[in-house]
Amino acid sequence: MPTLRLALAQVNPTVGDLVGNAELVRAWTRRAADAGAQLVAFPEMVLTGYPVEDLVFRRSFVAASRDALHRLAAELAADGFGDLPVVVGYLDADGPPQVSSDAEPGRGARNAAAVLHGGTVAATYFKHHLPNYGVFDEDRYFVPGDTLTVVRVGGVDVALTICEDLWQAGGPFAVARQAGVGLVVNINGSPYELNKDDIRRPLVSRRAVEAGAAIAYVNMIGGQDELVFEGDSMVVAADGTLLARGPQFVEHLLVHDLDLPAAPDRGAPASGELADGMRVSRTRISDAGAAPAGPPALGGIIEPAADEAEVWQALVLGLRGYVDKNRFPSVVLGLSGGIDSAVVAALAVDALGPQRVVGVSLPSQHSSEHSREDAAELAKRTGLDYRVEPIQPMVDTFLANMSLSGVSVENLQARVRGVILMALSNQEGHLVLTTGNKSELAVGYSTLYGDSVGGYNPVKDVWKTLIWRLAKWRNADAASRDETPPIPENSIGKPPSAELSPGQLDSDTLPDYAVLDPILIGYVDGDLGRDGLVEAGHDPALIDRVLRLVDTAEYKRRQSAPGTKISMKAFGRDRRLPITNRWREHG
Amino acid sequence: MPTLRLALAQVNPTVGDLVGNAELVRAWTRRAADAGAQLVAFPEMVLTGYPVEDLVFRRSFVAASRDALHRLAAELAADGFGDLPVVVGYLDADGPPQVSSDAEPGRGARNAAAVLHGGTVAATYFKHHLPNYGVFDEDRYFVPGDTLTVVRVGGVDVALTICEDLWQAGGPFAVARQAGVGLVVNINGSPYELNKDDIRRPLVSRRAVEAGAAIAYVNMIGGQDELVFEGDSMVVAADGTLLARGPQFVEHLLVHDLDLPAAPDRGAPASGELADGMRVSRTRISDAGAAPAGPPALGGIIEPAADEAEVWQALVLGLRGYVDKNRFPSVVLGLSGGIDSAVVAALAVDALGPQRVVGVSLPSQHSSEHSREDAAELAKRTGLDYRVEPIQPMVDTFLANMSLSGVSVENLQARVRGVILMALSNQEGHLVLTTGNKSELAVGYSTLYGDSVGGYNPVKDVWKTLIWRLAKWRNADAASRDETPPIPENSIGKPPSAELSPGQLDSDTLPDYAVLDPILIGYVDGDLGRDGLVEAGHDPALIDRVLRLVDTAEYKRRQSAPGTKISMKAFGRDRRLPITNRWREHG
Repeated sequence: MPTLRLALAQVNPTVGDLVGNAELVRAWTRRAADAGAQLVAFPEMVLTGYPVEDLVFRRSFVAASRDALHRLAAELAADGFGDLPVVVGYLDADGPPQVSSDAEPGRGARNAAAVLHGGTVAATYFKHHLPNYGVFDEDRYFVPGDTLTVVRVGGVDVALTICEDLWQAGGPFAVARQAGVGLVVNINGSPYELNKDDIRRPLVSRRAVEAGAAIAYVNMIGGQDELVFEGDSMVVAADGTLLARGPQFVEHLLVHDLDLPAAPDRGAPASGELADGMRVSRTRISDAGAAPAGPPALGGIIEPAADEAEVWQALVLGLRGYVDKNRFPSVVLGLSGGIDSAVVAALAVDALGPQRVVGVSLPSQHSSEHSREDAAELAKRTGLDYRVEPIQPMVDTFLANMSLSGVSVENLQARVRGVILMALSNQEGHLVLTTGNKSELAVGYSTLYGDSVGGYNPVKDVWKTLIWRLAKWRNADAASRDETPPIPENSIGKPPSAELSPGQLDSDTLPDYAVLDPILIGYVDGDLGRDGLVEAGHDPALIDRVLRLVDTAEYKRRQSAPGTKISMKAFGRDRRLPITNRWREHG
Repeated sequence: MPTLRLALAQVNPTVGDLVGNAELVRAWTRRAADAGAQLVAFPEMVLTGYPVEDLVFRRSFVAASRDALHRLAAELAADGFGDLPVVVGYLDADGPPQVSSDAEPGRGARNAAAVLHGGTVAATYFKHHLPNYGVFDEDRYFVPGDTLTVVRVGGVDVALTICEDLWQAGGPFAVARQAGVGLVVNINGSPYELNKDDIRRPLVSRRAVEAGAAIAYVNMIGGQDELVFEGDSMVVAADGTLLARGPQFVEHLLVHDLDLPAAPDRGAPASGELADGMRVSRTRISDAGAAPAGPPALGGIIEPAADEAEVWQALVLGLRGYVDKNRFPSVVLGLSGGIDSAVVAALAVDALGPQRVVGVSLPSQHSSEHSREDAAELAKRTGLDYRVEPIQPMVDTFLANMSLSGVSVENLQARVRGVILMALSNQEGHLVLTTGNKSELAVGYSTLYGDSVGGYNPVKDVWKTLIWRLAKWRNADAASRDETPPIPENSIGKPPSAELSPGQLDSDTLPDYAVLDPILIGYVDGDLGRDGLVEAGHDPALIDRVLRLVDTAEYKRRQSAPGTKISMKAFGRDRRLPITNRWREHG
């Protein structure tokens, strides 16, 4: 039984940065080779970054991906790693565009994996199961592959698969069993979701058993636009046993020696078999050779972090990715003394360091003394760049020149704050962070073009009750390491207030968050209707109150974004370009 | 050869408004019955409105659609139209949710059509070809049907199809030929695109010839969120000849007598045939009866409008739909004296009437005398509610309290204007309109959280050169009817300027729009790369300059919108709810 030393490189690519991503593959291949690896695998579309969205439709980008792949194969050989098979994800397309519909030409693009070996592209595989739900739109972008690619490496038959191929029954894993492979490599761009690892781990084991083969699962890490990739790469035996598991949220090379069944000697590799509607294509790369050199390599098993720690790391990584991949030098945010801005400030300092974070206190006549003190205290604890910009003179000038009353005056204050933060952004180059939590956003307890002004909101998908848990966890974690807890206890303990009118409290308008959040979670995250929420045990009158708030919030959001489309390429919902400045057509 | 009197009802439904849409079907069925119709057809998903996007995932909404369908069948019979077969589109789902993936449960929802007859749902059809490009995401929402539904009406075999079924070769139209039908009814929610009618018309004829059957094509009209539906319903003979065609952009009942082949007598209707991978299901509704009563009905052929007229009507309809379906009482916009705001004001007055349009002149120290005069002149010509709100006091207060220079000061002026417009919106209830054209948006020649503040932009998909053509067309059209041209000639003729610094002109920063637009059209609408643009004959240096501007604009847009997702239901790209306040869970 041959032993293969696998190296799974959970790296952090950047969408559009073909040159930088290729460099990443070269650097980590060197580390894998230094560790004696005999097969290296990188994540899904590592060469282009993921997701590339409508960049798929730009032929020049597809061509650039293919060119970069062939160049990378040559460079790896020139680096001295021509004998080491390296699996990389990239963007491909086969043949000229096909017309799939009179309305829209099909483009034949492929979510692809290649085995680079001997300075060439030795084999390719096209993703078979294309996810098209949640954040995924792959039916829009790709044509599914119908061939399972099997490469013989060190005398072992290894099948290539990509991400969703693992999440759906049948297809590649079923064919892998019929093809009698010893190992399935599964390369991923699998976005982080709260507790997704609880589902993923048993799923990998189940698929291993179904395929009758070990699985080498490698996932990228890093923030890209709204998404966070968490890593969590692993090696699972054919009987489903977890053998090795990498950490979450950091780059890592998981190196593990795996005993694998020798491939039966078929003479010349047989191709063209048919199984379960898919073909099998076989390529011989290397026959059984020497066992791995030196002491055995064991990847070790790292258990996932607890909930709050996991979310905190995800938010830090997401924010850092957005800021750095877009090349913003620094961020600025308003500090109210409240819990939301305190948590965002602490996240930003963890992501970027205090010298890249500007916190601005923007007091009005309604700001309490404790709010100003709490903001200053936060600044002192975290060491961020602290400023004070009182808003009252500007608010007063608007009020002197217009006839405003009630909620218009409340919103005016939030909008003056937005103007100040954007002015600082224009003047000094910071990215503006917003701090509205998901509960607030759901019920519309925020000011459009006021609180919502900014380029990135690290907590937009975090319910208010989780915000508090995160704050307490972060402080306790600091204390456990004898560091200063970043968030003032007062910001955690005091009743939430927008401070836009005298003595205002959130509880004047909203139910307690401890009651509100479970209803919102059922309605927004769970797609439950009123009846479903009643069945779940919530008070019907309270349900109606909350759903009315959500509907009103959806109505308020109608004050932003749409316009009339008269083409398929308006700057609206269907213009789905990734947020990248790493792909350039021009010189 | 039986003659059938068809009535195609191109009506304007509202997403989520199940009650209102059912009323619409009842009212137009009454008109069709009064005209002696023997078969009535309404558009795709007329009962729910289209597109309903992620509302599909709310079981309570699917159940409400099915309930509404059965209630409508009973109501039509109670109205006295039980004998008249009525084809309506609706949302259905079959059986309990299926698990299609470990990542996401499939929901089994269907984009469906029903024939209502005798107070019941006599037959149903599920859309087979699901579009998943451009504005369409139907692979995300629906399971494709695999059965062609054929109903015998007045002794003629009639097949039901839905929208995209027409746009893709094979499938229902191929099966319709094998099933030997005399007529294919195709119900649509087909969004307007510039010159789409030039493609659609010949396509309908081609499919008729392929199916060997006449086609009755009915499309909805109206604005819904970003989309506009244009109508353009038609009847085409089996040889492809256009027999009748309705108008664009208005509700209309196209009534036309059609000679159709009698169905062969098969005895009992045969079901369960297999053809081209689809089954055929047959239902007998009525055998050959009397010819239509009274004089023959001819629908007439209305030719589509010329380009500028067509776009103008589309923009008016889109704006009116957004304002009225969301129940905004009125709109407000800033009037600079320039061409963009003048065109948007004229569109708004055409859509809503002058008494529902507030135009605000927001002069600064850089506003020229002619700008103020042109804004006032526009107000005078159109009769809109005109106000003046000078911005200088507020701008000066910001400048006195902060250290700003250069572009920060330019942007500040635009943002103060945004704060004023939103304050008027809060105080008086208006929807704020924005006025940035597509060329400006593409090259980022606008202020984020300044010009971009507002709920709807009628011209976001209109290139600057088309803005000028529209203005000239609208004025000439008015003149041809002896009405006052709404747009001051001076706004059309003067060189464009943002007036944010002394003597500023667009041409200081941008190439001439006559040169800029063709490059942008190739790059944005055409997905051409640099090489493709060079091949198309553009100057390489100019291409590089323009592409740099677009990239910089994309970079600026990174200052809005994203945040970190940690669930599938964050308020970002994958939360795809339609913009409707017509669907309510609560009482």
